[in-house]
Amino acid sequence: MDNSENIHNDASDDGTIANDSALVQLASNWPSLTVGERKEQFNALSRTDAEELFLSLSPHDQAELLSEASALEKRSWVRLLAPDDVADLIQEMGTDSKDEVLSLLDPQTKREVSALLAYAEDNAGGLMSSRFVRLRPDMTVDEAISYLRIQSKTQVETIYYCYVIDANQHLQGVVSFRELFSASPGKTVKDIMHPDIVKIPVDLDQEQIARIFQQQSLLALPVVDGDGHMKGIVTLDDIADTIQEEATEDIQKIGGMETLDAPYMKTPFFELIRKRGGWLSILFVGEMFTATAMGYFQVEIERAVVLALFIPLIISSGGNSGSQASTLIIRAMALGEVRMRDWWRVLGRELLSGICLGVLLGGIGLTRILLWPAKEQLYGPHWLAVGMTIFFAVIGVVLWGTLSGSMLPFILKKLRLDPASASAPMVATIVDVTGLVIYFSVASVMLKGSLL
Amino acid sequence: MDNSENIHNDASDDGTIANDSALVQLASNWPSLTVGERKEQFNALSRTDAEELFLSLSPHDQAELLSEASALEKRSWVRLLAPDDVADLIQEMGTDSKDEVLSLLDPQTKREVSALLAYAEDNAGGLMSSRFVRLRPDMTVDEAISYLRIQSKTQVETIYYCYVIDANQHLQGVVSFRELFSASPGKTVKDIMHPDIVKIPVDLDQEQIARIFQQQSLLALPVVDGDGHMKGIVTLDDIADTIQEEATEDIQKIGGMETLDAPYMKTPFFELIRKRGGWLSILFVGEMFTATAMGYFQVEIERAVVLALFIPLIISSGGNSGSQASTLIIRAMALGEVRMRDWWRVLGRELLSGICLGVLLGGIGLTRILLWPAKEQLYGPHWLAVGMTIFFAVIGVVLWGTLSGSMLPFILKKLRLDPASASAPMVATIVDVTGLVIYFSVASVMLKGSLL
Repeated sequence: MDNSENIHNDASDDGTIANDSALVQLASNWPSLTVGERKEQFNALSRTDAEELFLSLSPHDQAELLSEASALEKRSWVRLLAPDDVADLIQEMGTDSKDEVLSLLDPQTKREVSALLAYAEDNAGGLMSSRFVRLRPDMTVDEAISYLRIQSKTQVETIYYCYVIDANQHLQGVVSFRELFSASPGKTVKDIMHPDIVKIPVDLDQEQIARIFQQQSLLALPVVDGDGHMKGIVTLDDIADTIQEEATEDIQKIGGMETLDAPYMKTPFFELIRKRGGWLSILFVGEMFTATAMGYFQVEIERAVVLALFIPLIISSGGNSGSQASTLIIRAMALGEVRMRDWWRVLGRELLSGICLGVLLGGIGLTRILLWPAKEQLYGPHWLAVGMTIFFAVIGVVLWGTLSGSMLPFILKKLRLDPASASAPMVATIVDVTGLVIYFSVASVMLKGSLL
Repeated sequence: MDNSENIHNDASDDGTIANDSALVQLASNWPSLTVGERKEQFNALSRTDAEELFLSLSPHDQAELLSEASALEKRSWVRLLAPDDVADLIQEMGTDSKDEVLSLLDPQTKREVSALLAYAEDNAGGLMSSRFVRLRPDMTVDEAISYLRIQSKTQVETIYYCYVIDANQHLQGVVSFRELFSASPGKTVKDIMHPDIVKIPVDLDQEQIARIFQQQSLLALPVVDGDGHMKGIVTLDDIADTIQEEATEDIQKIGGMETLDAPYMKTPFFELIRKRGGWLSILFVGEMFTATAMGYFQVEIERAVVLALFIPLIISSGGNSGSQASTLIIRAMALGEVRMRDWWRVLGRELLSGICLGVLLGGIGLTRILLWPAKEQLYGPHWLAVGMTIFFAVIGVVLWGTLSGSMLPFILKKLRLDPASASAPMVATIVDVTGLVIYFSVASVMLKGSLL
């Protein structure tokens, strides 16, 4: 909820636009405190300060503070919150506590919260607030302003955007408070409203909503259902949090793990192990194919142990270039810079990039072998052939890594999976197995008749 | 700049709160169009639509559209922009064009833009707008509202927060428009303002500003210099962009590359190669130490080629667990969930995690060797000893990967470098080299007298 305009809870006596600096400091340290420290600090605050702090916390932290409170205490805290924040809190506390929390609310808020809970947490319906300013099209500007003066004293999310709704609950237009304020008093709302308005459907995903906010520079967007009825508004401050959350989810997936539901320090140890261990085990099983692949080349390794020396170097250069490419594309997709239909343009670009990067790295590898003082001793009389094998193998592996890394997010998206699951470790694992095959194939061509 | 309250450019005829849906569609497709398509689509728009679109674009895209315009055209487009947006545009176009762009502005805006250019792009001074509403403490509420009615028709960033400034330009307090609006007309501004206010210094980094916004649910924050003089305001919509940018930078670093200055598709090819090739080369040179390390174990490999088969599996399990740990800690640091002083708590947690994850993966590896039908044929008569070597080596390498991955961000931060540089590929490279040493050390202990 947007606390940003005013003190619309009697309790929060000095409003959030003017906070005591010690309280700001405490709120900013909050994520790094232990549960014990939090409870202690919270209990030491005056009631008004505690309420102030409570309102500024995330639903996760609010749930934590409420976990041991008595029913009466819970009621007093829960009633501080706006309906959309109560809905978030319930989603955080789990469905078991749903009825308990709902029973603490007044009937009007209870209805609103229940309606919000019907939507998924991460779409427009789950993010929206139903407390917005409604005007009728035929009100005069003066009537609208007086009406607003009343509404501004109650719990509405924002008075700065006024939505013009007809008798059938259809959204007719919008007028900003600033426009209303500077219009001639005798005009009607209909005269000055903007009828052509950006609306978002209740089931729009939060990532797409964030993109619309970034393109539009708006403070709020109206949410409508399939029949064009206005259901609520989503405000920019809800979305700023969403952007952070989405980025965190993507980063954790790119790092090769399931996304955490809570901050690192707050995640229970065994949940942390489960979320990390799951992907690590899958990757480990995938990586076992490297041993299988190498089994096929055992004879070659026995004949030329020098080939084994370069295995980590070769496969890691594929893994690194693949991680780079996948991360780049995942982020570009999340920001809407690259779309499904761009896949072939990306393919062309990455084909060229792969060749350039491969020649660069292969060149470094070849140079090092050629310039190494003890090269004959280390690599035998066929050091030049070994060097050329490394050169071409690196080009092949880097090209392959770049192409798989850049195409995997497209494939995942096509399969309706999250492109961010093309994590750096996942790409590295895929490229390791195939990289070995490329390496030994190049070697068997280049070294036939000499070492092999 | 915040276009969200009103039409404060005469040009933008129907304001940004009410956009034509075709225009919204175009703005949302913009990042995926080619330069040619963009110019064509832009030229096909009516003047008002073109202006609307222009205002919604990023400074990078604005600069692109202006690149081939005549001086007169440029003037008409640049004058549409608010001072902070002009400053962003100049920073995007490079210092060469600074004087040219400044010469297009009216003297008042020119002064404001020059003042903004004195600050770094990514701190409060660079993000702020100097067009905010100023009230005097001794004005009555009625006077303040009339005064606002005038200011709301000019280019101020927001009329919703009014800053109370004394004769010495010191910030005395803040009052929200909503509060002013619902106060009794006879009171003075001083009576209803909040004197205790969150201020940000001009040199505060944008990442920290974003954190304050998330804790405070505010629409704008005042920026003050060292003497307490109010210099401007930073608005939430500027920060929403910043949050995305910071996340993109971190994600690209985690992927093991330099951050791009422009979207993937818009980055010139050779710049892309340079930004990716730089890190890849460094990692490649680092990874060469694997060949050196393996050189020391050449005798062991010759005696027991079976050891070589498991090299990719062993080192990748260290790399994967390290990537996970570093990504997790980098993100937790960026969100302020983990601070420098938490390093030992993280160390304890990761020590335990590393052991658990190591036993899990080592167990999978051991099981596979024990259950493999052709194990005697593949691994020789000492298959059990080989299995146990893998088991303990994986535990050691995963533990080491987890610890290095989680501690590296702390070390980088201590050295005043960006923790996000502890990229997945960088951690993997460090762990590869040391992982080999761990593997062969375990092998020489476990297999002494049997295979070695």
